[in-house]
Amino acid sequence: MQTYDTVLVISPHADDEVLGCGGMLARLSAEGSRVHVLYLSVDGMSHYGLANPVTYEARVAEIDRVAKLLGFEYTIAYGDRQLNERLDTLPRRELVDLFQDHLDRLRPDLLLLPSGDDYDQDHVATFTAAFAAARPIGRSFGKWLVPHVMSYEMSKLQWANKPLALCTAFLDISDHLDAKLAALREYASQHRPVPHIRSEESVSALAVLRGAEIGVRYAEAFEVHRTLL
Amino acid sequence: MQTYDTVLVISPHADDEVLGCGGMLARLSAEGSRVHVLYLSVDGMSHYGLANPVTYEARVAEIDRVAKLLGFEYTIAYGDRQLNERLDTLPRRELVDLFQDHLDRLRPDLLLLPSGDDYDQDHVATFTAAFAAARPIGRSFGKWLVPHVMSYEMSKLQWANKPLALCTAFLDISDHLDAKLAALREYASQHRPVPHIRSEESVSALAVLRGAEIGVRYAEAFEVHRTLL
Amino acid sequence: MQTYDTVLVISPHADDEVLGCGGMLARLSAEGSRVHVLYLSVDGMSHYGLANPVTYEARVAEIDRVAKLLGFEYTIAYGDRQLNERLDTLPRRELVDLFQDHLDRLRPDLLLLPSGDDYDQDHVATFTAAFAAARPIGRSFGKWLVPHVMSYEMSKLQWANKPLALCTAFLDISDHLDAKLAALREYASQHRPVPHIRSEESVSALAVLRGAEIGVRYAEAFEVHRTLL
Amino acid sequence: MQTYDTVLVISPHADDEVLGCGGMLARLSAEGSRVHVLYLSVDGMSHYGLANPVTYEARVAEIDRVAKLLGFEYTIAYGDRQLNERLDTLPRRELVDLFQDHLDRLRPDLLLLPSGDDYDQDHVATFTAAFAAARPIGRSFGKWLVPHVMSYEMSKLQWANKPLALCTAFLDISDHLDAKLAALREYASQHRPVPHIRSEESVSALAVLRGAEIGVRYAEAFEVHRTLL
Amino acid sequence: MQTYDTVLVISPHADDEVLGCGGMLARLSAEGSRVHVLYLSVDGMSHYGLANPVTYEARVAEIDRVAKLLGFEYTIAYGDRQLNERLDTLPRRELVDLFQDHLDRLRPDLLLLPSGDDYDQDHVATFTAAFAAARPIGRSFGKWLVPHVMSYEMSKLQWANKPLALCTAFLDISDHLDAKLAALREYASQHRPVPHIRSEESVSALAVLRGAEIGVRYAEAFEVHRTLL
Amino acid sequence: MQTYDTVLVISPHADDEVLGCGGMLARLSAEGSRVHVLYLSVDGMSHYGLANPVTYEARVAEIDRVAKLLGFEYTIAYGDRQLNERLDTLPRRELVDLFQDHLDRLRPDLLLLPSGDDYDQDHVATFTAAFAAARPIGRSFGKWLVPHVMSYEMSKLQWANKPLALCTAFLDISDHLDAKLAALREYASQHRPVPHIRSEESVSALAVLRGAEIGVRYAEAFEVHRTLL
Repeated sequence: MQTYDTVLVISPHADDEVLGCGGMLARLSAEGSRVHVLYLSVDGMSHYGLANPVTYEARVAEIDRVAKLLGFEYTIAYGDRQLNERLDTLPRRELVDLFQDHLDRLRPDLLLLPSGDDYDQDHVATFTAAFAAARPIGRSFGKWLVPHVMSYEMSKLQWANKPLALCTAFLDISDHLDAKLAALREYASQHRPVPHIRSEESVSALAVLRGAEIGVRYAEAFEVHRTLL
Repeated sequence: MQTYDTVLVISPHADDEVLGCGGMLARLSAEGSRVHVLYLSVDGMSHYGLANPVTYEARVAEIDRVAKLLGFEYTIAYGDRQLNERLDTLPRRELVDLFQDHLDRLRPDLLLLPSGDDYDQDHVATFTAAFAAARPIGRSFGKWLVPHVMSYEMSKLQWANKPLALCTAFLDISDHLDAKLAALREYASQHRPVPHIRSEESVSALAVLRGAEIGVRYAEAFEVHRTLL
Repeated sequence: MQTYDTVLVISPHADDEVLGCGGMLARLSAEGSRVHVLYLSVDGMSHYGLANPVTYEARVAEIDRVAKLLGFEYTIAYGDRQLNERLDTLPRRELVDLFQDHLDRLRPDLLLLPSGDDYDQDHVATFTAAFAAARPIGRSFGKWLVPHVMSYEMSKLQWANKPLALCTAFLDISDHLDAKLAALREYASQHRPVPHIRSEESVSALAVLRGAEIGVRYAEAFEVHRTLL
Repeated sequence: MQTYDTVLVISPHADDEVLGCGGMLARLSAEGSRVHVLYLSVDGMSHYGLANPVTYEARVAEIDRVAKLLGFEYTIAYGDRQLNERLDTLPRRELVDLFQDHLDRLRPDLLLLPSGDDYDQDHVATFTAAFAAARPIGRSFGKWLVPHVMSYEMSKLQWANKPLALCTAFLDISDHLDAKLAALREYASQHRPVPHIRSEESVSALAVLRGAEIGVRYAEAFEVHRTLL
Repeated sequence: MQTYDTVLVISPHADDEVLGCGGMLARLSAEGSRVHVLYLSVDGMSHYGLANPVTYEARVAEIDRVAKLLGFEYTIAYGDRQLNERLDTLPRRELVDLFQDHLDRLRPDLLLLPSGDDYDQDHVATFTAAFAAARPIGRSFGKWLVPHVMSYEMSKLQWANKPLALCTAFLDISDHLDAKLAALREYASQHRPVPHIRSEESVSALAVLRGAEIGVRYAEAFEVHRTLL
Repeated sequence: MQTYDTVLVISPHADDEVLGCGGMLARLSAEGSRVHVLYLSVDGMSHYGLANPVTYEARVAEIDRVAKLLGFEYTIAYGDRQLNERLDTLPRRELVDLFQDHLDRLRPDLLLLPSGDDYDQDHVATFTAAFAAARPIGRSFGKWLVPHVMSYEMSKLQWANKPLALCTAFLDISDHLDAKLAALREYASQHRPVPHIRSEESVSALAVLRGAEIGVRYAEAFEVHRTLL
């Protein structure tokens, strides 16, 4: 794998980063990169028909365990603010400024975004603002131009009304799928059995398909927005 | 026609359901389906340069006549709330929750949405939220997974800045175009003469073109988002 | 209407020019433009299940009547060569050279092509080669750069497996639809009754829809490939 | 499942029908539909670096076993003709006529095509010609208008240079994945182990992902070109 | 150049009109058209990391100099309102009504919009609302149907996550690039040196590429939304 | 720049490799990579209106000078075969086999293709076959899976009838634009002055725009088909 010193992952909710790039995070951590995850909205009562209520503290505890397991540090932008599925109500400039601050301070060489092809308003709001923050202003103008910007995908993304952008960057995670699935299980409040679109079986199936595209057992794939050769 | 027990039609304003699928509604009703139309915004003073003001009560009376003519029951989500052309100001979660409640309560086997390719902000807000509400969560997780989800089209939709999604599902409405046009005339406050994009001539012309695509006199066409074979 | 001195219409078969731009041809002729139609393949035995055989001479006689009615001159590139639905078997360079010769000799200010979004191999071969011939090489390099290049549409074109390019140029043909339909009837060998995709009713219906898009009774619409302001 | 009396599957090579819709074929057969598979090219020496040569007779024997297992009848259009990966050299009209003859004779209510989004020239030639053959000419004009036309997908299809069309029709094959995999194994000459894009693991993984999209264990998904409601 | 009596340019911020169509404005003015620029948001403190604060009055003075140089009149919709990069927080109906009023009052024959393919939320909000305002309602219904609607492009627009719409209308600005660059320099507060995406070198480079597409030294290109022939 | 041991560039004609990636070739060579260019068709009489005839030997001499200047080795697949603009007449399998042989023998870690979005039939035939040759078959199956596959772009590519794929990989060629332009001049038979789409000014202008997208003076950009992280 190409070496990255610093990686910033933007995650709308706590578990998107695992679903989208848990294998890469495990591998980056093993290879010594500094990885920072920025969560947007983390709330106690998750949205849409959750059987068992979960407290904000319990959700943070889940994140702590995952962060430890995958070896990353993290920040929560909107914790316990009841903004779950309401990120579209924020002025976009607020989100752009938030992301821009993180970029200029952390100066990552890899920025990972959620896909913009999502039916979930929080994902769209996050992607759109982060994409704007990563716009191509050269470093000579005082802004950090991230050399590598990509979006991670998830097994749920086929529910779309437009053709999906192709994922063309691949990472072999054959040695890290176990860590990805373990991290997924740590998000017990979000975890669902098969045939859910977020089940371990779905996550593994996507890894098998992406792996076959590069001739390995398991892989993660990414949409490339910018990569400096 | 395939049989549908229960059909939910989501209609941003009162007349979209007729323009988009009035022929299907007449046919469904004739064949014994239960059809429910959920209107989003119905207001007294319609938007953009209406010559004669119309009261909220008059608009509801129009709906009543159309509902009787085409044989459906209905609900108005935001009646007399001055939300016409302002649905984009609602948090999307509010709309998603509204639609999800209807889906879980009515358990329709066919869900009809306005097209997401529209220049009208109410249509876009409605489609986007309803599409999110119809996301693929299996029934074993306590949510109603609608087996057939489609969007209806209108003669006005060519005013777009991106290629339009293809409509690939067709319904022969040769015996029901009259009912569709009659319903259109009941919406006297919205009715416009030729060469308006909402005139009877435009509506008929679209039905002729769609009919020719399946070798019948008149048809309606739909974009397919999900269909269980 | 903007004035065009010379117009070149490329028509895969004899009737495509009427279906696609018969109204414009009538109007151009009435306004004094020189219009030249270049037919690709004209054969005696038309393809796919024609009930009554028709001779090559009969087909040319049809063209003569239409040319007189709509006021254009014409050339047939491949007459009586049994190339109907076989234009894809020609090396593309042969077609590109053919079109380039016509462009350099006629020096049209408007070039009209069949749509490239067609399931018919002759239409695709024609469009693709003509589009290459119209590539942007400046006049200072000895090639005629056509200032206005557009594609005409037909009522049949919705049978596609990709979203269709939008038609954004419009011509009011309210005074010329009759001539278009009369020309269509002259192509007796190709003429079909409703509900055929090439019937007068289909052609009129498309004209109604396009008319409503610009607030007139009937219009033709075109995809814009290049237009010099 | 909706009932289909007669189904025509067009398969460029012997194994595409299993990879794309083996589960549906098993299910259709179990429910009494008549299924006919039309193979395009079957050759003794398969293309691209096959380790062990295989005779034409051996390939036909494989087909016989699969046809028996999944319960379909079949025809081979170009058997032992060395046209493997050379179908693009045929005039398209020849293929269109071939498909049209099958449609008019078999009069299927469901037509299944390979996807047109494929890097393989045989698949593209097959899809394009079959799509043209299925164009919307009404039955009153003496041609069989197929009511349901769809494309099947495969795990290999992500190798593309354009966004892929969405698959929106789904069939639950939870009870038929075993038969699909068994049929795949019968194609011993084509069978490859993991992590090949045609391995059983890849095929199963795609079925898991599609299944999750409709809340079942395994599914196949299809692109909808036309469906009559 | 085709003659336009009245042109309305909608510009999210003060300098977009120069970047996008400064050459055309110079040429239109020289040829006697009445040109009106409608700015959306003009604020004292410009967005994102401006080194030297600039007052609202200074920004208006810049506009005055540019308007004089390029020969247009102008209105500022939201001056000194701190709405820079916050236009997405306005109800879209407010913007649609604003644009519609301008269209009905000025009755332009050419309407120029910012591109809708932009990462900047103000550009998207502006385009989307203006596009809705320009929807095709015929003049017989009391609304001004603009005959020519186009979007201008900028050198920055490649930062996108979807393929960009093609620009197919071209204007030779070989004699007006100097005026365009001079106007750009008047916007001293927004001006940036090479290699900025808004530098004179970038602007000139785009003009060279567009010029080569029509065989002239410098050109501007536009996306066509509607053009009446 | 990421290090590449071996690079294979596929070039339809002699000059495409310079127009598309001359800067990268200069830089790769300077950094010690082995670069191999595979030309498809090189003929004595170039197509379309060349003023001065040029012999095959003269064209090879041009290539020799460019190869020396940019430091690559090369092969000509079809030299002096009069296949210029006739590559579409070859069975695609012949081209796929040709490319596959080169891939398996050279085992490049970077494969550079012409864009598939081109109006030139030779470019399309080359891209399509090379893309098929690079399909994702794992190395465990005896085929060389190229880790990085990209397409180079040219200033002429805007003449298209579909939106163009985005170029998202960038290489700073600020120190190598001179070498690129010098190589361009060596192709004296193909060289054209401004305002030609292949002039030095056009090539430089594209390099300026791509440079601004990553904050450097000059860059080349590439469409990413596959990249292993």
